[in-house]
Amino acid sequence: METIEVRLRGLGLALPAAPQMPPGVRLPFPWVRVVGCRALISGHGPTLADGSLARPLGKVGAEVSLDQAREAARLTGLAILGSLARELGTLERVACWTRVFGMVNSAPGFNRQPAVINGFSELILDVFGPERGAHARSAVGMAGLPFDIPVEIEGEVELHPA
Amino acid sequence: METIEVRLRGLGLALPAAPQMPPGVRLPFPWVRVVGCRALISGHGPTLADGSLARPLGKVGAEVSLDQAREAARLTGLAILGSLARELGTLERVACWTRVFGMVNSAPGFNRQPAVINGFSELILDVFGPERGAHARSAVGMAGLPFDIPVEIEGEVELHPA
Amino acid sequence: METIEVRLRGLGLALPAAPQMPPGVRLPFPWVRVVGCRALISGHGPTLADGSLARPLGKVGAEVSLDQAREAARLTGLAILGSLARELGTLERVACWTRVFGMVNSAPGFNRQPAVINGFSELILDVFGPERGAHARSAVGMAGLPFDIPVEIEGEVELHPA
Repeated sequence: METIEVRLRGLGLALPAAPQMPPGVRLPFPWVRVVGCRALISGHGPTLADGSLARPLGKVGAEVSLDQAREAARLTGLAILGSLARELGTLERVACWTRVFGMVNSAPGFNRQPAVINGFSELILDVFGPERGAHARSAVGMAGLPFDIPVEIEGEVELHPA
Repeated sequence: METIEVRLRGLGLALPAAPQMPPGVRLPFPWVRVVGCRALISGHGPTLADGSLARPLGKVGAEVSLDQAREAARLTGLAILGSLARELGTLERVACWTRVFGMVNSAPGFNRQPAVINGFSELILDVFGPERGAHARSAVGMAGLPFDIPVEIEGEVELHPA
Repeated sequence: METIEVRLRGLGLALPAAPQMPPGVRLPFPWVRVVGCRALISGHGPTLADGSLARPLGKVGAEVSLDQAREAARLTGLAILGSLARELGTLERVACWTRVFGMVNSAPGFNRQPAVINGFSELILDVFGPERGAHARSAVGMAGLPFDIPVEIEGEVELHPA
């Protein structure tokens, strides 16, 4: 069976370093919380390879275009995979995806949140396949997000026993 | 014991067809994701009997009145029951409700989100009764929702073993 | 082992009475829903000792300052601990925290939601310690919240078997 790591390489994907917050920001919680066979994933934003926040920042439908937001959702997915890999040791422990909550920093009138969060869902399906990667999902519009990130995603995966 | 299907008929309720999205919209996720004894429910909006989006669309407190929004929440509940019935084969597999997250597309100044989402909660309690239907709940205001639907609800139920 | 009740007293903290809603408001759901070894926590707002809504109300970044909002998040934490204690009989049944979803009623341009919700996270860590109190978290901006409360928090804890 092809491993997730092999699949990531085959797709030309590299996982970024741990999220780096702007100076002075204290986030007193882990990026992933494992409880039994569940891994709860904290809200992540889009990051670059070094873990710093990806640009552009701002509201989707104003400062950030739909295409830029879809790419931000994809980067958010890579950031989450990085956090899962660091917490679990290996992504092979992910038995399947369960729940994804996709939040889009939305300018007035913007209503294409699903098209944005598809950038995340398509990444997960590419990496984990249609069964293991399937997830319940919401994609909704927020009035604001930390640091003006355009997308924030939280969720949950089911784990194989350690 | 009265079955849920009998109860639905007694209340004069029929479940709608699967949600139909506007042309060109791709939603790469299932409406319900079953993992062990949990069914995770994707964000649903209000639909008509044929699964098309119910009207009116827009923000509650502006284009959509409180009464219309409460009815939208009730229709969202029927859409969710339809998705659960299709995924599970029968609603009898629902052991109990656990979590409901009710999102209201809110005009500036609108703060009666609980009264809106009561349209959902009352339906669930009518159909499942006070014990099996009880659920933890939030009812909150969003800056935007897909297709300008006035209400979107996601949640979770606990299942009897298959 | 120091009990949670002793820890609360040591910190000078008292849990408030059950949340009291304004006249005419019907909330047809429990504040906490226990299912197996999980307790799902409904969205709570900040309350005073008698369970009434704490002031100030309004949007953070406009009518409510960052410091007031952080205090509101702390009060929301006390309200949640009160609900858990009433439902479970004792907070000792909380094996650990799992998920926290922190919602901030955000004025346009406000983007410091994490600093607000830190008021909640720091309380939980003070009371439960760094292992048992650790939680996956999101802190995000809402377009509106019930009764114009500045902060609403929902979440989940894992329980010891009864």
